[in-house]
Amino acid sequence: MTYWYEDIALGSPYPLGAHTFSEEEIVAFAAEFDPQYFHIDKEAARHSHFGSLIASGWHTVCVGHRIMVDTLFTQADLLRAKGETPGVTGPSPGVNKMVFKAPVRAGDTISYALTVRQKRPSQSLPGWGVLITAIEAHNQHGALVYHAEVVGFSKQRDFRPNLTQRLLIALGGLPGLGRIVRGR
Amino acid sequence: MTYWYEDIALGSPYPLGAHTFSEEEIVAFAAEFDPQYFHIDKEAARHSHFGSLIASGWHTVCVGHRIMVDTLFTQADLLRAKGETPGVTGPSPGVNKMVFKAPVRAGDTISYALTVRQKRPSQSLPGWGVLITAIEAHNQHGALVYHAEVVGFSKQRDFRPNLTQRLLIALGGLPGLGRIVRGR
Repeated sequence: MTYWYEDIALGSPYPLGAHTFSEEEIVAFAAEFDPQYFHIDKEAARHSHFGSLIASGWHTVCVGHRIMVDTLFTQADLLRAKGETPGVTGPSPGVNKMVFKAPVRAGDTISYALTVRQKRPSQSLPGWGVLITAIEAHNQHGALVYHAEVVGFSKQRDFRPNLTQRLLIALGGLPGLGRIVRGR
Repeated sequence: MTYWYEDIALGSPYPLGAHTFSEEEIVAFAAEFDPQYFHIDKEAARHSHFGSLIASGWHTVCVGHRIMVDTLFTQADLLRAKGETPGVTGPSPGVNKMVFKAPVRAGDTISYALTVRQKRPSQSLPGWGVLITAIEAHNQHGALVYHAEVVGFSKQRDFRPNLTQRLLIALGGLPGLGRIVRGR
């Protein structure tokens, strides 16, 4: 979310938007990243476990990610338009759990939503908070097709660093040494 | 793996192959699925937490998936060339854990490997086994950039269904009713 860590509310689903998966894009994505026959060959897919062409699970995930990023950008623009300074989201260290519940077929419209389940100040990144976020995707029939628990970072607006933290943050901003201090 | 469930050995890392990430493909993937500035804007990325352009984590994941699928296809072809019938891998129900440890930068060569950690007969799909597989990706300096624990299905070669299972499998093969029996 582009809210500051302190402002992020827990437990309320936040709708991100929807996407209709065309046959063409299902095949195009799979041809590049997941060329199994039930993702790229409409005819052969009829005889598969699923009975029709289905999107690669990674396609469902990537489209959801794009929709989330777009929503965060729009949200930040809206905050700026109101004269507020949007919060800062950091890179994700990973995903705790990812479950594919039902296939996504050509023509399906998938709606994505995000719910922040937990938050706590980060130990490793002073001034940041760690968010545990649930992503849920439903199709046009209301069936859950995919859900995941994603870990993210969000900046603390009211962070007051102590002397050691101030030193590390200052060093982290330097070009060469900074990379060592940041551990990257 | 394109080995039958019974033949799958636990614990040995299986190298899948490597991929060098170009700046162009990092930007192209991110423009479609993850348009955050540190994935698409080389100049702005210099001032990011990472100090340079980095690949979207989903890009790292998707390239690894493609390399795995290609390896499975090649392995199946080799088995056929030897006159053997390759095993059958099913769709993945999900991922247990996914961790991004270090950024992937333009020019990095990432090597992927797969290790089957656990296997057991599936309760929900008679005749199939469930595999818990570790995917690990290292860069050219030997640093682990990404690891995941993926759940997969693999067919049992020596499966002898009982009467109920034979009936369900037969019904599952029918066009209309099959979809209901298979629960999809």
